[in-house]
Amino acid sequence: MAEPSLARLSALFFGFLLLLATYSWVPRLHSGLLSGTGVQKTLGPDPKLRVDHSSAKPHHPLDPLTVQEIERVRTILLDHEPGFGSGSATIHSMALDEPDKTLVVKWKKGNRLPSRRAEVLALSVGQSHVIVVDLDSGRVVSDVVNPTSGYPILTMDDLIVASQVALKSIEFNRSVEARGVKLSDLVALPTFTGWFGPEEEGRRILKVQCFTSQDTPNYFMRPIEGLYATVDMDKLEVIKIVDKGMVPIPKAAGTEYRYNVQNKPVHMDRINPISIEQPEGPSFLVEDGHLVKWANWVFHVKADHRAGIIISQATVRDSETGEPRSVMYKGFPSELFVPYMDPGELWYYKSYLDAGEIGLGPAAMPLVPLNDCPRNAYYIDGVFALPDGKAIVQPNMICLFERYAGDVSWRHSEILIPNADVCPFTTRKQIRESRPKVTLVARMATSVGNYDYTFDWEFQSDGLIRVTVAASGMLMVKGTPYENVDDLGDKEDDSGPLISENVIGVVHDHFITFHLDMDIDGPMNNSFVKVHLEKQRVQSGKSPRKSYLKVKKYVAKTEKDAQIKLSLYDPYEFHIVNPNRKSRLGNPAGYRIIPGGNAVSLLDHDDPPQIRGAFSNNQIWVTRYNRSEQFAGGVLVYQSHGDDTLQVWSDRDRSIENNDIVLWYTLGFHHIPCQEDYPVMPTVAASFELKPANFFESNPVIGVAPIFEKDLPVCRPFASS
Amino acid sequence: MAEPSLARLSALFFGFLLLLATYSWVPRLHSGLLSGTGVQKTLGPDPKLRVDHSSAKPHHPLDPLTVQEIERVRTILLDHEPGFGSGSATIHSMALDEPDKTLVVKWKKGNRLPSRRAEVLALSVGQSHVIVVDLDSGRVVSDVVNPTSGYPILTMDDLIVASQVALKSIEFNRSVEARGVKLSDLVALPTFTGWFGPEEEGRRILKVQCFTSQDTPNYFMRPIEGLYATVDMDKLEVIKIVDKGMVPIPKAAGTEYRYNVQNKPVHMDRINPISIEQPEGPSFLVEDGHLVKWANWVFHVKADHRAGIIISQATVRDSETGEPRSVMYKGFPSELFVPYMDPGELWYYKSYLDAGEIGLGPAAMPLVPLNDCPRNAYYIDGVFALPDGKAIVQPNMICLFERYAGDVSWRHSEILIPNADVCPFTTRKQIRESRPKVTLVARMATSVGNYDYTFDWEFQSDGLIRVTVAASGMLMVKGTPYENVDDLGDKEDDSGPLISENVIGVVHDHFITFHLDMDIDGPMNNSFVKVHLEKQRVQSGKSPRKSYLKVKKYVAKTEKDAQIKLSLYDPYEFHIVNPNRKSRLGNPAGYRIIPGGNAVSLLDHDDPPQIRGAFSNNQIWVTRYNRSEQFAGGVLVYQSHGDDTLQVWSDRDRSIENNDIVLWYTLGFHHIPCQEDYPVMPTVAASFELKPANFFESNPVIGVAPIFEKDLPVCRPFASS
Repeated sequence: MAEPSLARLSALFFGFLLLLATYSWVPRLHSGLLSGTGVQKTLGPDPKLRVDHSSAKPHHPLDPLTVQEIERVRTILLDHEPGFGSGSATIHSMALDEPDKTLVVKWKKGNRLPSRRAEVLALSVGQSHVIVVDLDSGRVVSDVVNPTSGYPILTMDDLIVASQVALKSIEFNRSVEARGVKLSDLVALPTFTGWFGPEEEGRRILKVQCFTSQDTPNYFMRPIEGLYATVDMDKLEVIKIVDKGMVPIPKAAGTEYRYNVQNKPVHMDRINPISIEQPEGPSFLVEDGHLVKWANWVFHVKADHRAGIIISQATVRDSETGEPRSVMYKGFPSELFVPYMDPGELWYYKSYLDAGEIGLGPAAMPLVPLNDCPRNAYYIDGVFALPDGKAIVQPNMICLFERYAGDVSWRHSEILIPNADVCPFTTRKQIRESRPKVTLVARMATSVGNYDYTFDWEFQSDGLIRVTVAASGMLMVKGTPYENVDDLGDKEDDSGPLISENVIGVVHDHFITFHLDMDIDGPMNNSFVKVHLEKQRVQSGKSPRKSYLKVKKYVAKTEKDAQIKLSLYDPYEFHIVNPNRKSRLGNPAGYRIIPGGNAVSLLDHDDPPQIRGAFSNNQIWVTRYNRSEQFAGGVLVYQSHGDDTLQVWSDRDRSIENNDIVLWYTLGFHHIPCQEDYPVMPTVAASFELKPANFFESNPVIGVAPIFEKDLPVCRPFASS
Repeated sequence: MAEPSLARLSALFFGFLLLLATYSWVPRLHSGLLSGTGVQKTLGPDPKLRVDHSSAKPHHPLDPLTVQEIERVRTILLDHEPGFGSGSATIHSMALDEPDKTLVVKWKKGNRLPSRRAEVLALSVGQSHVIVVDLDSGRVVSDVVNPTSGYPILTMDDLIVASQVALKSIEFNRSVEARGVKLSDLVALPTFTGWFGPEEEGRRILKVQCFTSQDTPNYFMRPIEGLYATVDMDKLEVIKIVDKGMVPIPKAAGTEYRYNVQNKPVHMDRINPISIEQPEGPSFLVEDGHLVKWANWVFHVKADHRAGIIISQATVRDSETGEPRSVMYKGFPSELFVPYMDPGELWYYKSYLDAGEIGLGPAAMPLVPLNDCPRNAYYIDGVFALPDGKAIVQPNMICLFERYAGDVSWRHSEILIPNADVCPFTTRKQIRESRPKVTLVARMATSVGNYDYTFDWEFQSDGLIRVTVAASGMLMVKGTPYENVDDLGDKEDDSGPLISENVIGVVHDHFITFHLDMDIDGPMNNSFVKVHLEKQRVQSGKSPRKSYLKVKKYVAKTEKDAQIKLSLYDPYEFHIVNPNRKSRLGNPAGYRIIPGGNAVSLLDHDDPPQIRGAFSNNQIWVTRYNRSEQFAGGVLVYQSHGDDTLQVWSDRDRSIENNDIVLWYTLGFHHIPCQEDYPVMPTVAASFELKPANFFESNPVIGVAPIFEKDLPVCRPFASS
């Protein structure tokens, strides 16, 4: 139903990205640095050695679809359903349909790739389609219509259309103009509507709210409060306008954040230039565009339309034998859930599921060199499909860099304690040993509308993987007549604090749920062990102590045993172990998940947003591996009813002992905004860790070298060189 | 009662430190780089510009005692109590008795210093003394005997003596020799005995346990299990020997950790040299040895015998006016509590209070340049008193450095959403703004026997202070006859997992309690506000939503209102605000404490270790300022009964609203050891943050510049230069 002009607009939209990006796609097509011979190549971390997307071929079973493959899928789809040509059917996402795990695990470099397939989420005449296309046979192998509730991920076209439709409404225009906003300043921003019952069923809708960009690029801080239009995306018409009356529009002054335009004095002394320097170059290799090798780690990294960044087949070398050992088959941010805390008519629906509703990939703008990633970074592009099936390159979407922050990997200082008859000072030496911590980071940053999320996968040579989510960008704020808290009093409808004149920072939560398909020493034979610290009381007279903690282990039998609510007062460690792989001492090889940045969703379980975001009901879950259970909010998330979530899968209560299992973990933030979050929020970060626990026979970095002065670079200020 | 030879031994002990240190004291005495003119000087961050301790004078009311001042206190004390000369009285710690806060706050550079006083913890004929010496008048102004239960902090001499006394026992020697350990390999390690009731009252005792250093410097991994001697430190005699029979001594193989001696192959690719480089030099100034100025921060930093590192008078410039604004008057690690989880006769007493029992200062060995701190670090020494009152310099005890880890201070990417009638692509621009995060770190690392703790105070230009505690070093392990978990079965007395043959890693906790004297915009008029996120149910039919969270604020009236047990399921923010300093919008200026790394002590409240470590009963406390309430476990901690703890003070329930108040926060770790912790533990770190909340009018770093390539250094590998 989309008008033909939309495809053009969309291409323009993405094309615009390219023009602004540091490395644009078209020039690289002709640069010929690594022109397409089809032969596997080793890309070093030299940022100039980049993939030629015009000819790139997949080299690994998990490599994302290439530009050529996407074009081929498009051709196959046009045969299958001519509506894809006429615009009556649209492609909402297209990604590699990964081969079965057994095939991927068996595959070795040099082998023929397992058959390449694409999974396409599409919409045709209001129906959701999940289509699998086989590239080798050139056929559609399945086309399932409406497998669950919900619609496919939105496209940028959807947003453009919703905005256009709203602005075609005379009534809506009148409401805007009544507020004294010029249409040339208006930003009509479509927002995801959630799902609140039967009234909204059977049609795709978006809600369009408005901002003014008069005198600022930071229109988010200038909401036109009290107004939105609900747009029917099938009929392309406004079906409801809510206008609750005028609310003062907050001022533009103080909202600017662009460096070149800023003129606010900074009351601080200059910080001299500082840089992470590696004059011999980075230590990692990127083979065939996606396979990263560093220190004792090998993993596959790729950009993804929905998850933004996916890490696969992370393997670490054994510290005793050097053999590569599987740690994690696949890890990625599976869904985000961001409920706002205002039940009013204008705000109640704001409860976003960003990964499944809009996708982290298309919203991941090119990283800003030197600032989003340090100087020693290497960049990887994303390749996606447009609604008409054409390929588009998102440049510099992921960066890889080695991180040294002055931290210590391990240390010990020792003065040997003397004995009376053996003077220690003459014969023994003081010991001061310390080792620097250098890590490898794979980073992706995405701007989902107002919010910016940065995802870091950080690998340590001691076997630890740290995942960090950092949030910045703009708050979603609410206009208010009040300019001072004294005017507000004890207003009942207060949904958050006043953070600038006429601006309320609405309280909200963020929950980021990770899919962590841990395969400790292989895909099968993994178990989830709850390691409980149980308080024991000592029998009177048995010890001068009255109490202590004792470790007791419980192996989870089924999925319900592994629905974990963390408690400070009932502490557990949580291990994934391979009971068939024992250490020299007989301990099963394992990894722990170390939670961090926890906040719990306190919404009622029968509240519609919480039903859809039910994957946030527990902080940890373990499910039996099922290739279709990747996205915690379901495959079709937009307006979904919550019938295809992690909660639903886990409630099946399948056996998870000594099996192929998947760990799920949710990082959470409560956010009560404050003045400092205006007009852009300082970054807030939280991490969790996957840490070896009896995986290695002993500390695997005990033999690593310290830093010596002789190895460090000689630097001089740029200006004087 | 100490023999004269002990003073010599002790001097040797510290002297040994000096010889091994990178910068030793004696050479600097003659280096004349900044020879003592008594005039205030500005030390830049050039590491060659160091204090001349022979002539150093205090320049700031909070500057620690200088070498000259310590010598003067000694002279005054000798007059007061000749026992200090004969060895019948010993100095256990000597530190600046800080002037009253009102005097310090009023003081300005150029003013005369408030009178300099020293607080001395001493022991004389078995009695504890808290002595205050006035340096200006040359008098002892107070000498309080046994103000509370407990003895002063132990000295290194105490440890040496205890070891000597134990080894003079024929019975003890026989027990050692029966185990086939040569005395030349023996390490007799005195450990703190805790306090377990009347039986241990009225005399100072230490318990001496044994290890062998045969074929390894890592004697901690070779415990001689089943044996200890209790030593009476007054009578200098063994009063009890516990010998529970022979346990195999774990092997030496695999315990070595010194780089020069290591020969274990490392199964990982080389990591190229990496460094934080600032070719124009660091951006901070260190004035008069202790006053640090960086970006928008000024603070005073000093080494301390007990706390290791103290930050004082942290002030940040206002982002609107540039005026300096008080944030924190004083912050430091006030006490550590490390209970082990084994109630058996040989282990029950292990429940250490490291700051008050031995002190973090003397255990802080010189930092290892390039490894403990990065290349761009500047070092500060500690100055302490020996048991005979003589001064000793602990070189390179604190480092200051600017930290850049590739992280982002804030970011936003923006594609302005198009409107139907206004093509955005021709008139508007994509925005990609990102700013690097550069911070200033003040670091101290201390090796309290087996464990190494690193303390970081990290300052961000957005006003945030992050405090990180990192733990590394050796586990306190227990010998066991078992070599494999299959031998262990379901042993009832299992106090932890098997982490090497014959080695049990005993489960334990770490609690580190910080004293945070927050003075938001001045010492008075501060309040503690609990900002509650309360779940609200929506009345049926009022909204499609059923629930949301609402912010409600509670100002704590008294100390008991501020005894905080954190809960994921009942979330609060915790703010210190100055209700008399309002922002433009009318919000009170405030800082939040953001907890992190929480673990709760689950020991029974009536268990002796928990009575003494009662400051870990809550994660957050707020008390009314009282200059005598600095150390959460009390002034006299050794063998104390828990009658002078934060719990006791807080239970007085004083008014804390709109007053001078102190925030206390406890970082906690449960530690279940694993194989990777053997033979040295990889660093485990946890942080909490103090973050502005309506302190600034808006984001204070919005105007900070990005990194430009033109400002970055040109580096080449050292080898080729």
